[in-house]
Amino acid sequence: MTKKRVLTGITTTGTPHLGNYVGAIRPAIAASRSDDTESFFFLANFHALIKCQDPKAVHQSTKEIAATWLALGLDPEQATFYRQSDIHEIPELNWVLSCVCAKGLMNRAHAYKAAVDANVAEGEDADKAITMGLFNYPVLMAADILMFNADQVPVGKDQIQHIEMARDMAQRFNHLFASKKQPLLTLPNYQVDEHVAVLQGLDGRKMSKSYGNTIPLFLTEKQLRKHINKIKTNLLEPGEAKDPDDSTVFQIWQAFANEEQTAEMRQAFADGIGWGDAKGKLFELVNAELAEPRERYNDLMERPQDIEDILQMGAAKARKISQPLLQQIRQAVGIYPLSQD
Amino acid sequence: MTKKRVLTGITTTGTPHLGNYVGAIRPAIAASRSDDTESFFFLANFHALIKCQDPKAVHQSTKEIAATWLALGLDPEQATFYRQSDIHEIPELNWVLSCVCAKGLMNRAHAYKAAVDANVAEGEDADKAITMGLFNYPVLMAADILMFNADQVPVGKDQIQHIEMARDMAQRFNHLFASKKQPLLTLPNYQVDEHVAVLQGLDGRKMSKSYGNTIPLFLTEKQLRKHINKIKTNLLEPGEAKDPDDSTVFQIWQAFANEEQTAEMRQAFADGIGWGDAKGKLFELVNAELAEPRERYNDLMERPQDIEDILQMGAAKARKISQPLLQQIRQAVGIYPLSQD
Repeated sequence: MTKKRVLTGITTTGTPHLGNYVGAIRPAIAASRSDDTESFFFLANFHALIKCQDPKAVHQSTKEIAATWLALGLDPEQATFYRQSDIHEIPELNWVLSCVCAKGLMNRAHAYKAAVDANVAEGEDADKAITMGLFNYPVLMAADILMFNADQVPVGKDQIQHIEMARDMAQRFNHLFASKKQPLLTLPNYQVDEHVAVLQGLDGRKMSKSYGNTIPLFLTEKQLRKHINKIKTNLLEPGEAKDPDDSTVFQIWQAFANEEQTAEMRQAFADGIGWGDAKGKLFELVNAELAEPRERYNDLMERPQDIEDILQMGAAKARKISQPLLQQIRQAVGIYPLSQD
Repeated sequence: MTKKRVLTGITTTGTPHLGNYVGAIRPAIAASRSDDTESFFFLANFHALIKCQDPKAVHQSTKEIAATWLALGLDPEQATFYRQSDIHEIPELNWVLSCVCAKGLMNRAHAYKAAVDANVAEGEDADKAITMGLFNYPVLMAADILMFNADQVPVGKDQIQHIEMARDMAQRFNHLFASKKQPLLTLPNYQVDEHVAVLQGLDGRKMSKSYGNTIPLFLTEKQLRKHINKIKTNLLEPGEAKDPDDSTVFQIWQAFANEEQTAEMRQAFADGIGWGDAKGKLFELVNAELAEPRERYNDLMERPQDIEDILQMGAAKARKISQPLLQQIRQAVGIYPLSQD
């Protein structure tokens, strides 16, 4: 049986938080353990350059994210775990794809259009502060995906369009440069998990770096308790019944609890548990799940050379696929040794 | 004394013709012999992919152009002569630069705007049939130039804008990622030769592949004679005085003759030389200059492995510059080993 190849990119900006963990990291690592799946995870540091001009931040985030995934159980022997910038074939495929990608397709990319709309709303030039990196983003993303002939790419709904664009480029490339019977590039499919948990942040809005309302994943116990105590609640006193479905405390509880624990907390809310108590219990629950990974994380962060070695091993594994495929792509477009005719 | 670094790219589409030789190849090779110059010549096959979807044509043109420059005396020991696709650092720098290049800058590129204008004039969508390769072309060209910290880039007037764009990207990169005292990227200058000869083709218009009016450089003697005989002339008979300044025959003569020969032919025109005679003399003159290079060319074309070896040697020389510079660029933007802090 051929394994399904699933590819996930993680942009290396910022520090992972509980929302990333619940919504992306935990399900992705769980899925990577499936026997019928061949998982590729990569640290998208070329993509990070679009948004971040702070070299130390890009570097630090790369280290933190790599350590996070490893600490949470990503098995670099089973999965292929690499850093985008170690795969020299990707920027080259990016160029080749740009030559088969219609500019009109990029004009219609949501992220670009949103930036244009924001400029126009401000009465500014439509392309103000928009870089070619942002405009080219879907081409590089297509290169990331097509470089490994990925079958499935788990994405949020806002990213579906990018997978469709990658399909479009693959189709165009195959049409121009490959035979119908032996297409060179695999058309990827998107995979949207409708049940993915979207966690609320300290202020009750979606937990997001851009809102500054996150609970970072690997805080110390003390800091974690402090953050959880800061979660916004209403003014109901202990003894007054509370609505769990209107509460960030309950929502985060649910993301970490099993069914029985969830039912118990729902009852406790009905019974008027005090916010202090509820937050104390939430801390215990979250901390129980994160305590061991936290130790592994802190340990790894002290041994950056070991993370680097793991990424190098991943790059070697990945390049066993990207190198021969790029050779075929080069051959197809007319880039091959002069002596070969 | 620091040598001036001069960089010339040659797009690998088509077969070199007399116009290329007189207008570009001959002066470039002559300039490369200057002691105060360090010359870089590269076969721009990534650029060729923008225009050409025929892999055999890209390959064949790469071979022909490499053999042409070598046959005409380009010294691969003295100059650095390489194929763009052998320098893996270029597509990566292309991505890094795209992240510092404003999209608005590309909107204003002449080549792109000309394509848009043509579409609009036809009542078509502005971006019809325009690829991201065409739109990104000035970014890749900037990467070609900045990758080797070139000081000067000889260009036609229509390319001045691209050098200015490369300067713009270098400036922006240095501003964001380098110290004022130690800028990482060199700002290139364009170098326009006002006296460069623009040869007329068989039909009297500018000799150009797109007009189908060229005289290929390395035809057999017989074919060369045939092509020269096809040059369009007027109906004046032998014995009737002819205007040299209105004649393609005279114009090509001038491009190959020394001053004395030019004066002689001018006199012959006044004296009413017949077109057949004039063309016969033109063939002798052109053939005398091309006979030896033609032999070397034909010989090289039979030994593609030797051309390949020369290009590999050139790539090794070039990468001695591009590899360490890309390392510095990576460091500057935040792409470096995790163990290094």
